[in-house]
Amino acid sequence: MSRQLELAAIDACCSPLARKPLSESQAVELARVFKAISDPIRLRLLSLIASHKGGEACVCDLTDAFEVTGPTISHHLKVLRESGLIDGERRGTWVYYRVHPEELARLSAVLVPGDAAAVTV
Amino acid sequence: MSRQLELAAIDACCSPLARKPLSESQAVELARVFKAISDPIRLRLLSLIASHKGGEACVCDLTDAFEVTGPTISHHLKVLRESGLIDGERRGTWVYYRVHPEELARLSAVLVPGDAAAVTV
Repeated sequence: MSRQLELAAIDACCSPLARKPLSESQAVELARVFKAISDPIRLRLLSLIASHKGGEACVCDLTDAFEVTGPTISHHLKVLRESGLIDGERRGTWVYYRVHPEELARLSAVLVPGDAAAVTV
Repeated sequence: MSRQLELAAIDACCSPLARKPLSESQAVELARVFKAISDPIRLRLLSLIASHKGGEACVCDLTDAFEVTGPTISHHLKVLRESGLIDGERRGTWVYYRVHPEELARLSAVLVPGDAAAVTV
């Protein structure tokens, strides 16, 4: 996504919380996604997947970075999947994960601060 | 903050998690702030404060929007203060809250997705 597209996405897809108050249902939905990234291991997993070469990471690329068990990593990956931030696909022995960039962009846009949010493109 | 400044801030202040993997300490610190906004009432409070006329809201402007008690609102405001997202100042009878836009900008920048994060300005 180019910078221009990124800015267009900010304007088109989401009202920054600094532009107008979130509705109750918007807040419930967003809080659910922020909860998914309110854990250090999940944040690092998300970052490892998002920054991985080709935008995709095998679960075998992820476990070595952590001093927790495989099942714990699997649990955190499941929470990230259920939040809609990542998706996984089994190919052969391994599951491969990629982020949904539009979901990251949506969260990023919601948090754009007031002065920036007030600028009209 | 203008769009140009906003983009400069994205580049200057924070490495998007899609650009390179977060370190353990970065993840711990960020998870703490995301935890503060992983609650619907706190997200709505943050949004009400950030979008309020003049960028500042009296606690008396905030309580009416919620069907919870004053002490509950105070608790959530305290969590937001401790996260560094807002600040409060007592003036006369009331406490007035404002957001720290640089902190919102930092969170927004961290979540900029991969393709956008890879663009060099």
